Amino acid sequence: MDFRLVNGINVDQLFQTIELVKENPDLALFKFRARNTWVEGTHNRATVKDFYGAFQEDDSREVLTFELDEPPVLCGDNLGANPVEYLLVALSGCLTTSLVAHAAAKGIALKKVSTRFEGDLDLRGFLGLSEEVPVGFQTIRVFFTIDADLPEGQKEDLVKMAQKYSPVFNTITRATPVSVHLEK
Amino acid sequence: MDFRLVNGINVDQLFQTIELVKENPDLALFKFRARNTWVEGTHNRATVKDFYGAFQEDDSREVLTFELDEPPVLCGDNLGANPVEYLLVALSGCLTTSLVAHAAAKGIALKKVSTRFEGDLDLRGFLGLSEEVPVGFQTIRVFFTIDADLPEGQKEDLVKMAQKYSPVFNTITRATPVSVHLEK
Repeated sequence: MDFRLVNGINVDQLFQTIELVKENPDLALFKFRARNTWVEGTHNRATVKDFYGAFQEDDSREVLTFELDEPPVLCGDNLGANPVEYLLVALSGCLTTSLVAHAAAKGIALKKVSTRFEGDLDLRGFLGLSEEVPVGFQTIRVFFTIDADLPEGQKEDLVKMAQKYSPVFNTITRATPVSVHLEK
Repeated sequence: MDFRLVNGINVDQLFQTIELVKENPDLALFKFRARNTWVEGTHNRATVKDFYGAFQEDDSREVLTFELDEPPVLCGDNLGANPVEYLLVALSGCLTTSLVAHAAAKGIALKKVSTRFEGDLDLRGFLGLSEEVPVGFQTIRVFFTIDADLPEGQKEDLVKMAQKYSPVFNTITRATPVSVHLEK
């Protein structure tokens, strides 16, 4: 092996990337994308394929397809997880990767990391029955379980680091602008 | 057929739900959930199954599994879409369903709805190289294409309604609290 792996992360590549970005900050500018096609009712289908980053378009992946639907109590047929569940999936992956990668950068080995997520949604917002309740999640709770030879205080520090550096966590907890346009 | 379908949405069920929620607002309180297990490096796996809503736990779905990874340029092996792409998938499904359902409630028939999403991410935030750039998406752009026998102005109104009533859109664009805990 000609590079160092910590938690399965190539930390040599990580530190090289950091040095390159210090010299040329625009290397860090990425654009991520998705597409969606309505199927019927509450069922729709999203795809992910290309992205831009490190000064080039990357179109090398196969198309990744995601089914989205609602359960019957919300007028759907359970043909996929629903959109707010996908948001929790996104948050779960991002907090996990942020924790694992930043631990790796500090040389901290982890054995197991698992998490559970729960978000409170009052559907009176979606249904237009109240202007007072938030339309989105009122609050989201996250519980980390970390198996590693570390004192509790250091595990707590890792959990704080995950929040500080996770793009999805920060997209949700800070008001992120989303501009929506109609194609003519 | 003993109920009215508009855009594949059972609008009789939708209006019955609205009347029931007006009588008993707590019927609208839902809890959605996800779990995640780290696999290796930037690869982790999320699952979705149970939720709470309409006064009961629903554990009837099969487990839905989602692989998350990064592309090689971000130290991964492309074993799944990455977390910020899942966030765009969540947003895509939610804006689509919100638009379709609110159109159905108004009796507006749609033929086709498709969308594309692009979000700008400056990875200097994730890498801890700048306190000035946002760690999350700087901005997300959404483009709707709607095929329906409607004047442009009415399509624009539908796009505004989608934003007003979409839980994921509002979770992202308003600062949503996320509390993160370490299990002892």
